[in-house]
Amino acid sequence: MFRTHTCGQLRLSDVGKEITLSGWVQRVRDKGTLLWIDLRDRYGITQLFLEEGQSDAKLFEQARSLGREYVIRVTGTVAERESKNPNIPTGEIEIRLSKLELLNASKTPPFTIEEKSDGGDELRMKYRYLDLRRNPLKNNLTLRHKLAIEVRQYLDKQGFLEIETPYLIKSTPEGARDFVVPSRMNAGEFYALPQSPQTFKQILMVAGYDRYFQIVRCFRDEDLRADRQPEFTQIDCEMAFVAQEDVLNTFEGMAHHLFQSVKGIDIGTFERMDYATAMKLYGSDKPDIRFGMQFVELNDLAKGKGFSIFDDATLVVGIKAEGCAEYTRKQLDALTDFVKRPQVGAKGLVYVKYNTDGTFKSSVDKFYSETELKSWADRFGAKPGDLLLVLSGEEEKTRKQLNELRLEMGNQLGLRDPNVFKPLWVTDFPLLEWDEETKRYYAMHHPFTSPKPEDIALLDTDPRKVRANAYDMVINGVEIGGGSIRIHDRELQRRMFSILGFSDEEALHQFGFLMNAFEYGAPPHGGIALGFDRLTAMFAGLDSIRDVIAFPKNNAGRDMMIDSPSTIAQAQLDELALKINKKD
Amino acid sequence: MFRTHTCGQLRLSDVGKEITLSGWVQRVRDKGTLLWIDLRDRYGITQLFLEEGQSDAKLFEQARSLGREYVIRVTGTVAERESKNPNIPTGEIEIRLSKLELLNASKTPPFTIEEKSDGGDELRMKYRYLDLRRNPLKNNLTLRHKLAIEVRQYLDKQGFLEIETPYLIKSTPEGARDFVVPSRMNAGEFYALPQSPQTFKQILMVAGYDRYFQIVRCFRDEDLRADRQPEFTQIDCEMAFVAQEDVLNTFEGMAHHLFQSVKGIDIGTFERMDYATAMKLYGSDKPDIRFGMQFVELNDLAKGKGFSIFDDATLVVGIKAEGCAEYTRKQLDALTDFVKRPQVGAKGLVYVKYNTDGTFKSSVDKFYSETELKSWADRFGAKPGDLLLVLSGEEEKTRKQLNELRLEMGNQLGLRDPNVFKPLWVTDFPLLEWDEETKRYYAMHHPFTSPKPEDIALLDTDPRKVRANAYDMVINGVEIGGGSIRIHDRELQRRMFSILGFSDEEALHQFGFLMNAFEYGAPPHGGIALGFDRLTAMFAGLDSIRDVIAFPKNNAGRDMMIDSPSTIAQAQLDELALKINKKD
Repeated sequence: MFRTHTCGQLRLSDVGKEITLSGWVQRVRDKGTLLWIDLRDRYGITQLFLEEGQSDAKLFEQARSLGREYVIRVTGTVAERESKNPNIPTGEIEIRLSKLELLNASKTPPFTIEEKSDGGDELRMKYRYLDLRRNPLKNNLTLRHKLAIEVRQYLDKQGFLEIETPYLIKSTPEGARDFVVPSRMNAGEFYALPQSPQTFKQILMVAGYDRYFQIVRCFRDEDLRADRQPEFTQIDCEMAFVAQEDVLNTFEGMAHHLFQSVKGIDIGTFERMDYATAMKLYGSDKPDIRFGMQFVELNDLAKGKGFSIFDDATLVVGIKAEGCAEYTRKQLDALTDFVKRPQVGAKGLVYVKYNTDGTFKSSVDKFYSETELKSWADRFGAKPGDLLLVLSGEEEKTRKQLNELRLEMGNQLGLRDPNVFKPLWVTDFPLLEWDEETKRYYAMHHPFTSPKPEDIALLDTDPRKVRANAYDMVINGVEIGGGSIRIHDRELQRRMFSILGFSDEEALHQFGFLMNAFEYGAPPHGGIALGFDRLTAMFAGLDSIRDVIAFPKNNAGRDMMIDSPSTIAQAQLDELALKINKKD
Repeated sequence: MFRTHTCGQLRLSDVGKEITLSGWVQRVRDKGTLLWIDLRDRYGITQLFLEEGQSDAKLFEQARSLGREYVIRVTGTVAERESKNPNIPTGEIEIRLSKLELLNASKTPPFTIEEKSDGGDELRMKYRYLDLRRNPLKNNLTLRHKLAIEVRQYLDKQGFLEIETPYLIKSTPEGARDFVVPSRMNAGEFYALPQSPQTFKQILMVAGYDRYFQIVRCFRDEDLRADRQPEFTQIDCEMAFVAQEDVLNTFEGMAHHLFQSVKGIDIGTFERMDYATAMKLYGSDKPDIRFGMQFVELNDLAKGKGFSIFDDATLVVGIKAEGCAEYTRKQLDALTDFVKRPQVGAKGLVYVKYNTDGTFKSSVDKFYSETELKSWADRFGAKPGDLLLVLSGEEEKTRKQLNELRLEMGNQLGLRDPNVFKPLWVTDFPLLEWDEETKRYYAMHHPFTSPKPEDIALLDTDPRKVRANAYDMVINGVEIGGGSIRIHDRELQRRMFSILGFSDEEALHQFGFLMNAFEYGAPPHGGIALGFDRLTAMFAGLDSIRDVIAFPKNNAGRDMMIDSPSTIAQAQLDELALKINKKD
């Protein structure tokens, strides 16, 4: 028997019991005649105690020789502590040892295994098994488990079936790059790893499984930006015989259930906002609505007054920072620097201070009278003491820049409390995006998304204006998931592929099985996919997904712990009929 | 609104309600003035009814034009049926239609969508979305979902955390062949898809997550025999601070929970049998113990009497088929043919009939007296009316052949009732297997399995005799899962690799991360992996796993529906720095 209890379990009510624990030595405090060991396992820390004279001398020596992270089994009696530690659940007791057995020694870890580690990123990824011993990571993975359990519980109760779809599927050039898997039995042919089970879940709808879900790994061979992983996990869902409203209600319900059951929070009803409004008011399709600071347009007030920067701009637009009129020169310069960073890309920043005495001070005093600035302030609904921050330029870019500035101001003013959650549905996304470089349309969501019926006529005349039955779940400015009502009509699907530049042959070659399936009684259907890593990170209060994944890869797609990818044996290449064709 | 109810929901108590249903047309029965439609969805079938004169004439025409598998939405009133169908839950009611809307038409399916389809295997796999509409497949996938839910519920309650391990890992030549994934960002390097998360789950134990599980996809690039899939699903589990007994009890508990919650069956306590006994009594490491018919050895009684076949054999061994003494010549010839099939490989079969009148009739009467045959019968504990079936030859082969014969007799005598479940733990497997061809040892389970402490000394002197702390869960002769207590000591692991013919460098190159992890406080640990496809098939009463998988591949590893694997674009190959090197 390795243990009668865990290291997080014993309390005052257990005093007097003889117990056995196993775990890792977190710390040994040796005060000469008294010695304490903090013994750690997944469940907590229990203090072990030895006193010279009282305890066996050999036992004392043994305890003294223990190092950090040694694995031991101990037996002893639960006793009340003299000086209690109110910060841990086992803080009122300690174990008076009668027996100690070394199960495994440990080298000295290359970094500390505490709440905050002193290890660098690369080192911690190489020794992931040590980093995973730290509480923050343990809490993240426990949270992830709990979330997965609750997702399944909710969806099971709603009649969803979890159905596994294959990982060895077929490569399709549309969308992101696939990882491919050479087939040995079919030399020269390849499987691909799924970027999502999209076509399979639609096939399941055609097959009559009207409520499907799967917590499933997805793969994208992208050049990794910060916080993207080549493999990631998705809560993938699809429903048949539904309209958009049914999907939104079902997954709003799921979000409620998760926040309630895991965090004990009622997040309330989701706000709804169409894409056009989100772009207009926030310059983003995933606005953080924990705070207002909505965009205010000034074209009519600001143009034609001789300020050429505004005059040349297609859009003059700003936000109001309440109570910030007393920002210093230095603070304003810092904001200007912020918007001029290449990641934001603005040329400059115009400010207008609405001073508490009712006067105005701005960076464009030369061009605008106090009355004119007052009319700006009125448009913003500004009060004395407020600060207006104004950007200008080409419409789409300017909105994006102002979005960045708004989020930065939200951060600076403490308006983005990670313990407050404001969920939002963004709806009515455009169906298509025009790509200047390749001179073709791309599906904004994916090629299976249905246009709004009332916009179908525009497909021929003005495809850019066609809105889709597509929606995103956004919480605190983070896109948690997205979905759409799908096309279920073969002819409309063919037309969609044709708009996307597929010949009929290409469409059939790649998606023939789905288009054929549409001819055998495809029901109306739609669904959603939620980023499970992202959702967990949000619940954990983290910006990055890396530490909610047990074994993440670094930005070069490399697993530092197992040192992969790596070369394979020539015999393996030969069996796969492959040659490496490296250009140096 | 597509539906107010499902097609499996309405009952007599709903009579009079106006309802809306959506689903597929299973059948239209047109009796001229009366017309019935069977409407099907995932939940059942509801009968729709129209009567000429009573119903709108246009509606009647519309209904008449429907074909099989058309998708429709209907509105009508629930009414009591005149002639009730007691075989379906909705059999007491029908819907008097007031409205019918065609949601999607269907071509005529290439095979019938009924309990038993008339479609061949290849056709059904190509049109998998139609085959999946059939009840048997729907029941299988629903069962699979339910089993997964219950597995998670049980393990969660036992304190296990589900932790996702990576799918893009590192290729290791030991064991079966890996599928590999070329890395674009690291030209010439490859990931591999996991054959199991073995090393990662051990790493999680080192990381302190003392109870891990995962329902996880695994991949093996093997030449596919019947009923093997290149990707399959495993319930993968690991525990730290446990001995073998703890693991067996935990997963015996899980099996109990599954049989109880899903089938309402108490399967009782698992029998235990060590590998040596299983081989001796059943010639198999996965005996079907729903019936006895244990092996009885006859060397001392049967050899040395001038029958050269027995005299030349190292083993003479048989089984007793109770009450089969009256088998005809034809039946006995058929059994002889059975054992002589190449898959079984015996040279012949000796029978001894213990006639009801107490006399004996055998195929070796020339060599053995009645008294001698009586001594055989006594050894078997045979009664008049029983039949003895005896094989001989080289020991291991003969046992395997007799195992086949025993199972065949079990089938013929109806002793293998699929509704009876007899679980068994087979323990104490050999650690190593000698391979004559490559003249080296292979790990019988895997290289991380720990030898029994009392057998470690034999590693140097007689490795073949070393028993492992390894165990299989066997139910009704099917290996449902297997596991072991692992090595957690770096030095023992190094020695194990060395016995398996790895140089220290090779071992470090492939498994260095695990061996290094063992130096930082690895706890004692062990685990098990259960075949989830196989488990589901057993619960479904099926011999094959193919129809408990939504989208299986055929024996050539091909997905017939999506037609994969397939060629990829030259640009993809170029990006991956690969050339195809096909030999014609």
